Amino acid sequence: MSNAGTVEERVAEAAGRARVAATDLALATRAVKDAALLAMADALVGQSAAVLAANAEDVAAAEAAGTGEHLVDRLRLDHDRVEAMARGLREVAGLPDPVGEVLRGSTLANGLELRQVRVPFGVVGIIYEARPNVTADAAGICLKSGNAVLLRGSSSARRTNSAVVEILRDAAVASGLPADVAQLVPGEGHEAAKALMRARGLVDVLIPRGGAGLIRSVVTESTVPVIETGVGNCHVYVDAEADLDMALAIVLNAKTQRTSVCNAAESLLVHADVADAFLPRVVPALQQAGVTVHGDPTFQAYDGVVPATDDDHATEYLALEISAAVVPDLDAAIGHIRRFSSGHTEAIVTGSQAAARRFVAAVDSAAVLVNASTRFTDGGEFGFGAEIGISTQKLHARGPMGLPEMTSTKFVVTGAGHTR
Amino acid sequence: MSNAGTVEERVAEAAGRARVAATDLALATRAVKDAALLAMADALVGQSAAVLAANAEDVAAAEAAGTGEHLVDRLRLDHDRVEAMARGLREVAGLPDPVGEVLRGSTLANGLELRQVRVPFGVVGIIYEARPNVTADAAGICLKSGNAVLLRGSSSARRTNSAVVEILRDAAVASGLPADVAQLVPGEGHEAAKALMRARGLVDVLIPRGGAGLIRSVVTESTVPVIETGVGNCHVYVDAEADLDMALAIVLNAKTQRTSVCNAAESLLVHADVADAFLPRVVPALQQAGVTVHGDPTFQAYDGVVPATDDDHATEYLALEISAAVVPDLDAAIGHIRRFSSGHTEAIVTGSQAAARRFVAAVDSAAVLVNASTRFTDGGEFGFGAEIGISTQKLHARGPMGLPEMTSTKFVVTGAGHTR
Repeated sequence: MSNAGTVEERVAEAAGRARVAATDLALATRAVKDAALLAMADALVGQSAAVLAANAEDVAAAEAAGTGEHLVDRLRLDHDRVEAMARGLREVAGLPDPVGEVLRGSTLANGLELRQVRVPFGVVGIIYEARPNVTADAAGICLKSGNAVLLRGSSSARRTNSAVVEILRDAAVASGLPADVAQLVPGEGHEAAKALMRARGLVDVLIPRGGAGLIRSVVTESTVPVIETGVGNCHVYVDAEADLDMALAIVLNAKTQRTSVCNAAESLLVHADVADAFLPRVVPALQQAGVTVHGDPTFQAYDGVVPATDDDHATEYLALEISAAVVPDLDAAIGHIRRFSSGHTEAIVTGSQAAARRFVAAVDSAAVLVNASTRFTDGGEFGFGAEIGISTQKLHARGPMGLPEMTSTKFVVTGAGHTR
Repeated sequence: MSNAGTVEERVAEAAGRARVAATDLALATRAVKDAALLAMADALVGQSAAVLAANAEDVAAAEAAGTGEHLVDRLRLDHDRVEAMARGLREVAGLPDPVGEVLRGSTLANGLELRQVRVPFGVVGIIYEARPNVTADAAGICLKSGNAVLLRGSSSARRTNSAVVEILRDAAVASGLPADVAQLVPGEGHEAAKALMRARGLVDVLIPRGGAGLIRSVVTESTVPVIETGVGNCHVYVDAEADLDMALAIVLNAKTQRTSVCNAAESLLVHADVADAFLPRVVPALQQAGVTVHGDPTFQAYDGVVPATDDDHATEYLALEISAAVVPDLDAAIGHIRRFSSGHTEAIVTGSQAAARRFVAAVDSAAVLVNASTRFTDGGEFGFGAEIGISTQKLHARGPMGLPEMTSTKFVVTGAGHTR
């Protein structure tokens, strides 16, 4: 990569190379792409020493800079984590190729043959935070879906990401694909990210993966079309007609099975009719599991419950905390969710068909679950095989995004000299 | 509508009312929506005198302001044009309801039932230029797809649009739907349009319909997700193995059947092997039809051909003009198209299966046609029944957008107390 020119020029140059690579990649067969993915996986494992050495430098630099242990842990790789990256690439090789799928087809009244066919976007930009495994995951998903990728990772993982991408590029070339199917965005700091966000016409789609702040900044600053992912202020609503044993199990699972993920529950709503029966069970159970309950006045009647503000109701804690409120009826629960939800995942626990139907229809989120934990909103759980993120926007893709969501379409129309 | 507050506040207030209406509309059955569309059609015809009176004022004001006759003609309504607007609404009523369609469904290994279901976006903003028929067309398509619409028409059509929207709103109310399923954006001038573009979170999708300048400004300024439509610098490529009679018919049809539309051809490329045979036929035929040919040096050997610049190759004339060039081979044609096309529609005329296959795979446009006129890229021609525009972007929808393209999706997951 050249170091001459401004950051904008260098990013534009990289995007131009990505576009050329994308043209070749769009025409590559599944066999070629899968061979490249398997070669990448083998190369990552074979050269894991180089990756771990680069990672050790990143970790040492982060520790020297006084980075918190939690973030350092996200950054740190070991042999198992490198193996997991390779396994991810092999899994993507095993998935069907979305490119070329015919979504619609018909012969029009005039004899024209119409086909709507999946095609790659072209060039995809990914902006993400610390975890270096995203580098290999995103590159694999983009390659399989026929897209060249521009990766903009955290600067704290720069050496690691660089080592991983070099290995992936070499494996691509050895498999007959251009090296530039995967590139790190050149340049450091916010300027480089900003240049990527402004590369409209060069970059087809931008996907931010990370915390709410990162996503907000990309959505606001980007002129490249963005797919917003990930922020999950997920609700569990326990209806008047809920099986309370089931409700207790779902609330505990949704809140505590894994707290740092976007499909963990952050808010609990309970129908007033079952509050007296359910609150004495759910509050101690949550507290036993280490959860701080931020409750409305009804919840505050229970030991250890702290008062909930509107901010609490709007917060994605990603921690052992939950906001909680009693609602007078189903529509009040729906109203609360419409007001505070980030549109990711909401669950109802109910034995009532009518309540389930109303909740499913009126809640406007990417996933609505009936009698199941919010933790199921996940590409792997849904059987999509690989996931680039969970879209919380309504345009293009909504919910877990697998390989098909990383494509556009093209209409192919065949005639015999047809004119109007 | 209130006239208090800043333009931003008034637009936000209107969007808030649209959101409330959208919540009701999302739950409305097809029967209710179709009844409202038919009532709207009847009301437009029944009250056409009021529409025509308002339109006469707009036309008089435009003429007094010295507006060109072409624009005044686009603005002018007559009884037939009002009838056509009503007919459009009735046709939309006859189309299937996209809302509720199940796109995917499966039972996961753990017994969870997964369904991906079409749902409305919510609130759609449409920014469009003079033609007042868009007001009824867009309102009808949005209503049928379950979306509340904020309409921002040209200020020159303000009185007409106002009269039309009032009639549509009254008919909605008479059919049991909220009036605010359709609203004009309050306020005048660019400030009101800008407020609509900045209403992220209140407006789900913005669709600009109009010239290249309007679309560019919306794409650049909007923080609301945009679906880019319409600019068509469409190419016809005449291959070495083309049937030249067929090629001539397709070129003439694509260029001259209707010049002011986005799927008209704007550029002609001819393989060098057939240049000597085809140029002496196509140049006079185009000129006979009144077309000015902007040609490369080979074309300039023919009488009346004026020199083509890169600007010509990049121009969407929307007039009796065409840029033209001879290319050494198929890949040069593909390269030219990749460089200059707006990604709308390109056609190849060829008898070669290999050339057709390569062209279809390598040309990256919304529609690629083989042995057919570019004029077929159209929702009506494709059998979609109604069209809100032709998307030239890759995200969400690409090509003619019918009712299904005006929806998002939602995952509905049903369990029996499932936890992870």
